[in-house]
Amino acid sequence: MEKGRLESFSDGVFAVAITVLVFNLLTIGEGGELTYHDVVGHLAWQRYAAYAVGFLTIGIMWLNHHTMVAHVTRVDRPTLILNILLLMGIVAIPFPTTLVADHLTGSGSSGRVAVVTYGVISILLSLGFFAMWSYVGAHQEPLAARPPGERLSSVLRFSAGAWAYLAGTLVAAFWSPVAGLIIFGVTAVYYLFEHLPNPGCGSDPGSAAG
Amino acid sequence: MEKGRLESFSDGVFAVAITVLVFNLLTIGEGGELTYHDVVGHLAWQRYAAYAVGFLTIGIMWLNHHTMVAHVTRVDRPTLILNILLLMGIVAIPFPTTLVADHLTGSGSSGRVAVVTYGVISILLSLGFFAMWSYVGAHQEPLAARPPGERLSSVLRFSAGAWAYLAGTLVAAFWSPVAGLIIFGVTAVYYLFEHLPNPGCGSDPGSAAG
Amino acid sequence: MEKGRLESFSDGVFAVAITVLVFNLLTIGEGGELTYHDVVGHLAWQRYAAYAVGFLTIGIMWLNHHTMVAHVTRVDRPTLILNILLLMGIVAIPFPTTLVADHLTGSGSSGRVAVVTYGVISILLSLGFFAMWSYVGAHQEPLAARPPGERLSSVLRFSAGAWAYLAGTLVAAFWSPVAGLIIFGVTAVYYLFEHLPNPGCGSDPGSAAG
Amino acid sequence: MEKGRLESFSDGVFAVAITVLVFNLLTIGEGGELTYHDVVGHLAWQRYAAYAVGFLTIGIMWLNHHTMVAHVTRVDRPTLILNILLLMGIVAIPFPTTLVADHLTGSGSSGRVAVVTYGVISILLSLGFFAMWSYVGAHQEPLAARPPGERLSSVLRFSAGAWAYLAGTLVAAFWSPVAGLIIFGVTAVYYLFEHLPNPGCGSDPGSAAG
Repeated sequence: MEKGRLESFSDGVFAVAITVLVFNLLTIGEGGELTYHDVVGHLAWQRYAAYAVGFLTIGIMWLNHHTMVAHVTRVDRPTLILNILLLMGIVAIPFPTTLVADHLTGSGSSGRVAVVTYGVISILLSLGFFAMWSYVGAHQEPLAARPPGERLSSVLRFSAGAWAYLAGTLVAAFWSPVAGLIIFGVTAVYYLFEHLPNPGCGSDPGSAAG
Repeated sequence: MEKGRLESFSDGVFAVAITVLVFNLLTIGEGGELTYHDVVGHLAWQRYAAYAVGFLTIGIMWLNHHTMVAHVTRVDRPTLILNILLLMGIVAIPFPTTLVADHLTGSGSSGRVAVVTYGVISILLSLGFFAMWSYVGAHQEPLAARPPGERLSSVLRFSAGAWAYLAGTLVAAFWSPVAGLIIFGVTAVYYLFEHLPNPGCGSDPGSAAG
Repeated sequence: MEKGRLESFSDGVFAVAITVLVFNLLTIGEGGELTYHDVVGHLAWQRYAAYAVGFLTIGIMWLNHHTMVAHVTRVDRPTLILNILLLMGIVAIPFPTTLVADHLTGSGSSGRVAVVTYGVISILLSLGFFAMWSYVGAHQEPLAARPPGERLSSVLRFSAGAWAYLAGTLVAAFWSPVAGLIIFGVTAVYYLFEHLPNPGCGSDPGSAAG
Repeated sequence: MEKGRLESFSDGVFAVAITVLVFNLLTIGEGGELTYHDVVGHLAWQRYAAYAVGFLTIGIMWLNHHTMVAHVTRVDRPTLILNILLLMGIVAIPFPTTLVADHLTGSGSSGRVAVVTYGVISILLSLGFFAMWSYVGAHQEPLAARPPGERLSSVLRFSAGAWAYLAGTLVAAFWSPVAGLIIFGVTAVYYLFEHLPNPGCGSDPGSAAG
């Protein structure tokens, strides 16, 4: 299958999934009279935080997905299947984000359950990326992959992502949901700057046309 | 009409329809306090199952739609009309998926009605794909189609898909909705691996540029 | 501005707007127990009818939008502005569709108001298409438009569309909402087969690459 | 990274965000019987106004985003990060739009809070565009930017946008929410006609192929 339509479909799914997050903001100010407290108060910030973390998470995953796909010039059936499973996880992210937006500082175990659910789904997604990246690394010839070069280090880096999500999940489960969410946010920001190797190096501007 | 914009529009519709499925997860944990039981309990799994089956169904249909379109190099008016009717069915999939998510193990005939509705719509979609594939097969010259080769076998395979959906529907109607849903899930997984003939064979890597 | 990104953005908007229509089906079977009557009864068919008419309407408008854009090779600022205003109308279509889905056979004037609202918005959209088509016709050189040839007849045909919507609106307002909706559906089906002139004629298959 | 996929993802996000605005119309006519007053009355117009202002705002931002991206031929990591942050603001626009649609003429401070929230988010977005445009201006070589030419004037023009949003916000906060909203609408219409410099001038029609 040509790579282009996989990218186009995936980009569409990422774009819709990231936009679905706004529904967590649309419940701010529902009901009777609207006051400044409704939009800057405690419960609103809980929603803004969930929105920001969810948005950065999906945004980073879009970046990494894109980098991964840029490494190959063809896709085969297993790549497509792995991609659909990966997207199934991406599209699910608004679900734990909504849990966090609704329950982060809620009574009893609410915040804990919300952040732990967020973490478990993030770990699963890390594993999905790891699986897809491993597949690409092991099938460079049929996929006409460009030499990934520092593949090992990037796999290690991905593992680091999964460990960070695990740490945040454990922190949320046994100590503080807010601290767990902060760990997820910091992980997302880290991935904004640290990332998978680019398929083309700086001296190859022509790779942009790939 | 050029093929590109039909693909771009269809990809967009598939991407949005598949993402709408997440709304079935967003109702998990609604209301008061959130407990672990809310996210791993019986009713949550009912929603996860509906989400997974619906996601795989639309994902597989995207794959097959893409394979079908890759067979032609031009599209004419009837192809466009068949495509719009097909998309009308694709976009409707979140409807029976929601019925299943809400009612699979519900009281009385609820689960039965939900899974039967899912099956009937899937059968209609199989027929829609069959119609479009038949049209492409019968108008290879105006559509500049590449020789489909094993067309007959693929039509038979499509029929097998419709038969599987019919079997699941009957099982749900007269025996067990859960068993019917499992048949739909297995059918989707089967189509992940078995599929329409590719327009280019393995010895023609250049077809990816088509 | 290059034409490509206008197409890509417009296709995305059309794709999302057409998919939003499914939310009208998602309310079928809400609440308690689910019976066959819920999915094939009178109120469900009202929703299926609204979904089908809305879907065909947006689908046809996508086809016509695409044909119109295929006539030009460049877009200027006024074209972009007309396009944004046109999309503002397209995106609004789920609104009257929801009114019809909820109220077609409702008590009092409900059905009447719903179908008349649908008609008024459709008339405004026809005028928007007419304006954009007139602009393209009057600025063929700066837009590098291909000779539209049978421009006049197509303008007449568009007017016919507006007249049909007006007829349906009046029928709904003073006689029967269901009859008005049928007129809208028939109009959509008519446009499926009758349409704007293609930029390239049949003897110019290379136009598919444009 | 190649520019194409950034454009494709951004276009998708803009398209979904702009379509989410229709949910503000879908609550018109909810509940019991539907009368003409429901669709042309005071509360409906409040929703139409919010829809139009929000739609034009996102539409204009799409135009400007597109113009900005057209200036470069490559994107680097900081551009991608700035772009994700910008999209985080774009996707949030339906939130204050919903506040305005629900509360513009509501009791007490409701309208005030709604329009001020709209204004604050618009100011943040103006600053985001300003930051991204400044980055592009300061890194013309690595981004292979075409000479922006009248860069300074365009930065000033952007500042004018931020000042207009600030004026509207202050007017809403201390005088009239409706007047504030009108200022936002007028600002959007102004930006429809006045805009960033195009990457190619009129004598370079070939730039459309870039």
